[in-house]
Amino acid sequence: MEQQEVITNKQIIFRDYINGFPKESDMIFNTSATINLKLPEGSNGVLVKNLYLSCDPYMRSRMSKLQGSYVESFTPGSPIVGYGVAKVLDSGHSNFKNGDLVWGITGWEEYSVITNPEALFKIQHTDVPLSYYTGILGMPGMTVYVGFNNVCAPKNGEYVFVSAASGAVGQLVGQFAKLAGCYVVGSAGTKEKVELLKNKFGFDEAFNYKEEQDLDAALKRCFPEGIDIYFENVGGKMLEAVLLNMRLNGRISACGMISHYNNEQGEAVRNLFHIITKRLLVQGFIVFDHYHLYPKYMKMNIPLIKQGTIRYVEDVVEGLENAPAALVGLFSGRNVGKQVVVVARE
Amino acid sequence: MEQQEVITNKQIIFRDYINGFPKESDMIFNTSATINLKLPEGSNGVLVKNLYLSCDPYMRSRMSKLQGSYVESFTPGSPIVGYGVAKVLDSGHSNFKNGDLVWGITGWEEYSVITNPEALFKIQHTDVPLSYYTGILGMPGMTVYVGFNNVCAPKNGEYVFVSAASGAVGQLVGQFAKLAGCYVVGSAGTKEKVELLKNKFGFDEAFNYKEEQDLDAALKRCFPEGIDIYFENVGGKMLEAVLLNMRLNGRISACGMISHYNNEQGEAVRNLFHIITKRLLVQGFIVFDHYHLYPKYMKMNIPLIKQGTIRYVEDVVEGLENAPAALVGLFSGRNVGKQVVVVARE
Repeated sequence: MEQQEVITNKQIIFRDYINGFPKESDMIFNTSATINLKLPEGSNGVLVKNLYLSCDPYMRSRMSKLQGSYVESFTPGSPIVGYGVAKVLDSGHSNFKNGDLVWGITGWEEYSVITNPEALFKIQHTDVPLSYYTGILGMPGMTVYVGFNNVCAPKNGEYVFVSAASGAVGQLVGQFAKLAGCYVVGSAGTKEKVELLKNKFGFDEAFNYKEEQDLDAALKRCFPEGIDIYFENVGGKMLEAVLLNMRLNGRISACGMISHYNNEQGEAVRNLFHIITKRLLVQGFIVFDHYHLYPKYMKMNIPLIKQGTIRYVEDVVEGLENAPAALVGLFSGRNVGKQVVVVARE
Repeated sequence: MEQQEVITNKQIIFRDYINGFPKESDMIFNTSATINLKLPEGSNGVLVKNLYLSCDPYMRSRMSKLQGSYVESFTPGSPIVGYGVAKVLDSGHSNFKNGDLVWGITGWEEYSVITNPEALFKIQHTDVPLSYYTGILGMPGMTVYVGFNNVCAPKNGEYVFVSAASGAVGQLVGQFAKLAGCYVVGSAGTKEKVELLKNKFGFDEAFNYKEEQDLDAALKRCFPEGIDIYFENVGGKMLEAVLLNMRLNGRISACGMISHYNNEQGEAVRNLFHIITKRLLVQGFIVFDHYHLYPKYMKMNIPLIKQGTIRYVEDVVEGLENAPAALVGLFSGRNVGKQVVVVARE
């Protein structure tokens, strides 16, 4: 006879497909679900307790009704899913045992049954904050490793521009750029974030894009010699201005365009002719394709974190019930640093 | 005592910088200039008789007042300059002797003094039409070699789309794509051109973009599986529609955007988010950077031309005085195939 331990499982339920900007009311905090903390016999999955949940801009895409996209839509009436850090409570899979810490795709709920645990990463290093596995040591960190270190291939002395520079990805691009010997400028949306870029992350220069009348002029002020590498996080008007300021043989790595997530076709972008005249490389990529590089990234990055060479700022919200506001806040730039939600601390 | 032979040198003079579409009246046919057919003593240049002049879309850029562009503006009051085929009449440079045939940048006039003959290519193969050195064996041919064969790296069975497909560049992209084992579709602006694509150049399918209500639908009809490679010649609305139809890991080679030449900022383009979700490579390039590959290209292409494997259609206009109309005609698609102007036949 199996042991039965059925308890409450609070959840954030995705209400229904949306258009435009997400609202908190697009998600429902449900306190009436329950879960058996024992996997059914014969299951190959794992049952986990969720500790930290990640709020990432790409999640907006999953709130639309999608067909043939790089991600699938959330299921209306089911919990939101996303990256998180979790602890294995019961395992039907030989790779995992009770007590293992993992990161990967999980549910926005207290406990989740993960039926494809092969896609989870086992956490080896626990002498760093576990929440880092939603950020610098997780998907956003790998995004920077692939998109900046690999695609942009920075060289000593090059000029690097990062938009959304204080976010989960941008703050790392800036720091890796400095390590590569580049001159790096970031843009962000508040005075506080601009200070953070300059004083905490070591950006050479930073500006508040909301206070600039003319983005082209702002870039010309920061980059009198032009830009060699642009790590694209926003798209739209910023991309238009960047194209005017790219140097010959520049590289644009594109893994996100936050200004396009809430708009079906995205903003129309001018100045594309500069791609030709400046012989630019524009490379889109999705980090999911490159997870085989994760061990290499960890080997490089863990020492940098432990030595304090690389810093990482998180915006930590306590409580699953506050996750919808945290997610929605990404799109107005309310977060300062990587947005994490604490469900439980082990 | 130097020999003096001063004769009339008819010229096409660039009147002044323009905005918007070029007109014939932006150029002046000047019959009052003269030239001494002997180089001055001590000259390191060459004096050439111009045979064939090339009309190329990029020349529109040079009619604007440019600063820091990839090309320089034409000089108001001086002859238009562009690619051409010419015969050396007098040489002060040890690499060239009287009677040599060359191709490269020359003036729109009967005779030119070329002060930097190092930039000229000596013509080795004269058993092909000499006018080919303005097209398939000149800059447009190299554009295809670099942008399609190298940047797009076509693989057997891939789906290739070419816009402006009957032009100097497009007709070659289609034929090289077929040689690489690709499925290739071209768009052009008249029924006649569409027929040419299918019947002469071996495109698998072709459509008249002017007769399509919905470019996205046209591409979906021609490419139910999507597009792996887009050789970008036009930009604007066509690029928007193509982005919707690209496949994962697709490649877009961008060397021209004819729809952007006559518009300062270019048309605004939507759907750029697909660059990310489909992991697209967009590579701008300028053929000038890659001329070191010319001998390799010739080695590949000369046999293909002689065997009749590759065909090349030219739109040949007789007489220097008709050059302005020929150049202007490019932007309304009046030419069928590579636009060449005959100044003299040796």
